[in-house]
Amino acid sequence: MSESVPSISEEFIEEAAATGPVCLSDESIKEIIDALHDEEENSHLLLVNSLNIPDTAELLSKIPAEDRKALIKNRRVKIDPQAYSYLDDDLKKSTLCLLSPSRVAGIISELDSDDALDLIENLDEEFQQEIIRKLSAKMRVAIEEGLTFPEESAGRLMQREYVAVPQFWTVGKTIDYLRAAANDLPSEFYDLIIIDPTYHVIGEIPLNRILRSKRQQKIEELTLDDLHTIPAEMDQEEVALIFRREGLNSAPVVDAENRLIGVITVDDILDVIDEEAQEDILKLAGVESDFYRAILSTTGSRFRWLFVNLITAIVASIVISFFDATIEQVVALAILMPIVASMGGNAGTQALTVAVRALATKELSSTNAVRIIGKETIVGFLNGVGFAVIMGVIAALWFQNETLGAVIAGAMVINLFVAGLAGVAIPVFLDKIGSDPALSSTVLLTTITDIVGFFAFLGLASIFLI
Amino acid sequence: MSESVPSISEEFIEEAAATGPVCLSDESIKEIIDALHDEEENSHLLLVNSLNIPDTAELLSKIPAEDRKALIKNRRVKIDPQAYSYLDDDLKKSTLCLLSPSRVAGIISELDSDDALDLIENLDEEFQQEIIRKLSAKMRVAIEEGLTFPEESAGRLMQREYVAVPQFWTVGKTIDYLRAAANDLPSEFYDLIIIDPTYHVIGEIPLNRILRSKRQQKIEELTLDDLHTIPAEMDQEEVALIFRREGLNSAPVVDAENRLIGVITVDDILDVIDEEAQEDILKLAGVESDFYRAILSTTGSRFRWLFVNLITAIVASIVISFFDATIEQVVALAILMPIVASMGGNAGTQALTVAVRALATKELSSTNAVRIIGKETIVGFLNGVGFAVIMGVIAALWFQNETLGAVIAGAMVINLFVAGLAGVAIPVFLDKIGSDPALSSTVLLTTITDIVGFFAFLGLASIFLI
Repeated sequence: MSESVPSISEEFIEEAAATGPVCLSDESIKEIIDALHDEEENSHLLLVNSLNIPDTAELLSKIPAEDRKALIKNRRVKIDPQAYSYLDDDLKKSTLCLLSPSRVAGIISELDSDDALDLIENLDEEFQQEIIRKLSAKMRVAIEEGLTFPEESAGRLMQREYVAVPQFWTVGKTIDYLRAAANDLPSEFYDLIIIDPTYHVIGEIPLNRILRSKRQQKIEELTLDDLHTIPAEMDQEEVALIFRREGLNSAPVVDAENRLIGVITVDDILDVIDEEAQEDILKLAGVESDFYRAILSTTGSRFRWLFVNLITAIVASIVISFFDATIEQVVALAILMPIVASMGGNAGTQALTVAVRALATKELSSTNAVRIIGKETIVGFLNGVGFAVIMGVIAALWFQNETLGAVIAGAMVINLFVAGLAGVAIPVFLDKIGSDPALSSTVLLTTITDIVGFFAFLGLASIFLI
Repeated sequence: MSESVPSISEEFIEEAAATGPVCLSDESIKEIIDALHDEEENSHLLLVNSLNIPDTAELLSKIPAEDRKALIKNRRVKIDPQAYSYLDDDLKKSTLCLLSPSRVAGIISELDSDDALDLIENLDEEFQQEIIRKLSAKMRVAIEEGLTFPEESAGRLMQREYVAVPQFWTVGKTIDYLRAAANDLPSEFYDLIIIDPTYHVIGEIPLNRILRSKRQQKIEELTLDDLHTIPAEMDQEEVALIFRREGLNSAPVVDAENRLIGVITVDDILDVIDEEAQEDILKLAGVESDFYRAILSTTGSRFRWLFVNLITAIVASIVISFFDATIEQVVALAILMPIVASMGGNAGTQALTVAVRALATKELSSTNAVRIIGKETIVGFLNGVGFAVIMGVIAALWFQNETLGAVIAGAMVINLFVAGLAGVAIPVFLDKIGSDPALSSTVLLTTITDIVGFFAFLGLASIFLI
C-alpha cells in the first residue's frame, strides 16, 4: 500500500488543478470521505490541505454531517479560515457550533471585518458573546459595532478596511503614500475614497484614473462627480440596485453624520443579488432556504406553509360542498372541475411571477402599474377565450352534452380573466401596503382562482344544466 | 406661464439629484409625459437631456410605447447612446426598430464593443446587416466576430478593450506606458493582463498591487498565481459561477489557441447572475421574460405553457372519471379530492424549488444526490403523516364518517411521500439527461401529484367506503 499513496495524492492534486475552478470532482470527494472512515489510510486526508479555499468550502458543504464533524475535528487537517465564510448560513452555524469558542475566535481573527461579522452574526447570542470575549480589542470593537446595524443592511455588508486620501494631495503624493503604507492597506481595493479633514466623503477615484495620470495632477481634479455614498442603515437589496444601476465597483458607507465608516465592494454585491433572487424563488414556492438543514427542522418549516395551504384548500372544498346536489346529478362536473381551477391557478401564477420580479427590480411602480394590470387582465381574458373554445369542444364531445361544454367555456373565461387581474393586482397591492409580495401572493392567488373557478363552473352548471 | 418654466425645471433637476440613484420619481415621469402631449409646453421636454444615463433608461422603460416613440423621434431630445444598452432585451429591439439603420449605427459607434454587440445581437438579421454596413471598419469586424460566438457565451459578454503588458516590464515602465497611452485606454479597467509576445495569457495583476509597489519591481513578480482564463465558448452561467467562486473582478477571455481576445468584467457578471436567477424563477412558473412585450405576443407565449398544463389536467380528470360510480354514491369524495391533490402539489413544489436552485449553483451533484433525495422523501412522509392526522379528523367530523377520515388520511400520506420523492428526483433526473430542470419539472411534478392524489384517494374510497 505504501507505494500507492504518493501516486494517488499526485493524481489527485493534478486532477484538482485540471478540473479547475468550477467544481471539485465527485470522485475526489469520495476519496476523502473514504480516507476519513479508514484509520490506516488516514494519510490521504492530508490531500484536503492542498485544496484551495473554494474547493475546501465545497468539500465541507457536500459531505454528510458526521464526516464534516470528523474532518474539522481532525488535528492533521488544516482548514483555511476563509473557507468557513464561503459556507451557506445554516451550514456556517452548524459547523462553527462544533468548535470551541477560542477556536472560532482564532478563525475570525484571520478574516476581514465584513467576513468576520458575517460568520458570527447568525450564532446563538451566548456562544457569540463567548467568542467576542476572546477576540483582540480591535476586532471586538468592529464586531460589536457591526452587530448594532440592522440585519441585511449596508452596515453589516461593509468592510472597515478602506483607503482614503485627502482632496488636496497630488497623484504623486498618493502613489508615494500607497507604496509606503503597502503592508497596512487592505488586501484588495478598487477605488480611492477622497475625504475632507472631518472624514466627510467628497468623492471616489477608480484606481485606473490614478495610474493614467501624471504625478503633478491634483487629486481633486480626478474625483468623479457622481458620488454614491451609502447610508449604513440602507437595506442590502437597495444597495445592490444602486450598484447595478450605476455600474459601481465599490462605494463608501457613511454614518448618520455622513462620515466615512467603511466600504462595500462589488463581490459582496454578487452574493446579495444571488441571495435576493433566490429568496424570491423560494418564497414564491412557500419554502425557506433549507438545503443544508436537518430533516426535522426542514419538515417543521415546510409544515407551516402547507398548513396555510390546507386552510385555503378547505375553503375551496366548502365552495364545492354548496353544490353537492348538483354534482350528485351530473357526476361529470366532479370530473371536469379540477381543470377549471388548475388553469386559473397556472395563468395567475404566470402573471404573478412576472409582477413579483418587476416589483423587486423596481421596473413596476405606480407610473406603469395601471397599464400593466390592464395588460395582464387582457392577456388572461384572451387566453380564457382560447381555452374556453378548446375545453368547451372537448367537454361537449366527451360527455355528449353541449350545455356542459358551454358551461365549462364560460367558467374558463371568467376564471382566467380573474386570474390575470389578481395575478398582478395582488403583488402590487401587497407592495403598496409595505408587505413582501413574494411571500404571500401565491397563496392568496390560488385561493382566489380555486374559489372563482369552482364557483363559476358549478354555479353556471346549477343554473343551466339542472 | 413663462415664469413657471424655469422654476419647474430647476425643481425637477434638484429633485432628480435628491431622490438620487435608485429611482426616477413617478411624478417626474408624469411631468415629462405631459410635456410630450402638450405642444406648447414642449420646452419641458428638454429636462430629459439633464437626466443621467440610468434615469434616461428608466424613463424609456416606464412610459407607454407611443410616448417612447414620440420621445426618441423628437429632435430636441438628446438620448445618450449608453442609455439604450440599459434597456431590457425586448425593449431594446422594439425601440431600435423605430430608428433608421444609420441612426442605430451612430448609437453603436459610441459604445464599447460588448455593449455594441449586446445592442445589435437580438435585432432581425436584415436590419442587423443594414446597420453593420454603416459601421466603421473596426467596429464592423468586432461585431461580426462577436456574432460568431454562441449566444450567452463568454465571447458575447467580453469587451475587446483591455490593457495588457508584457511580463518583463517593471512597475515604473508600466505606469509610464499607462500615462502616455491614457487616451487610448478603455474607459475603465481593474486588472492588468500579463502576456507573452504571442499573446498567450501568463497572469493578471489587480491595479492596487501596481500602485503599492516600487517602480523597480518586476511585473512578473507581482503576477497572481491562480490564473482564471475563460474560453470564449464557455456558457455565461458557468462564467458567473467562476467569478463568484473565485471572487474575481475581471478575467481574460482566450480563443481556441489560448490567445487573449478580450476581457470580462464583474459588472457584466452582475447582469448575468440576475438574468439567470430571473430565468429560473420564470421558467418554474412557465412564463418567459415578457414584461415589456406587447399583449398579443405575451398571450401567445403564455398560451403554449397553459396548453401543456391543460393536457395534464385532462389526464388527471380521466383518472377521476374511472371512479365516477364511486363519486355518484359518495359526493363527499368530490368535495374533498382537490385537497389531496393540492397538498401534494404544494409539498412537491417546495422540494422541487430547493432542488432546482441547488442544481443551478452546483450545490447538488452526484455526491449528495442520493442523500438529498432520501431527505426530501422523509420530509414528505413526515408532513404526510402530520396532515393525514389533521385532515383525517376534519373529514371524519365534517361528514360524520370515520372511514372517510381514514381514507383521506391514507391518501395524504401516499401523495406527500410521492411528492417529496418526485419533487427532488424529477429535477435531478432532468439535469442528468442534460435537460433544463427549471423548464419542465413543474408540469411533470403536478401531473404526478394530481394523478397519484386522485388515484390514491378515490381508489382507497372505492375499496373501503363502498
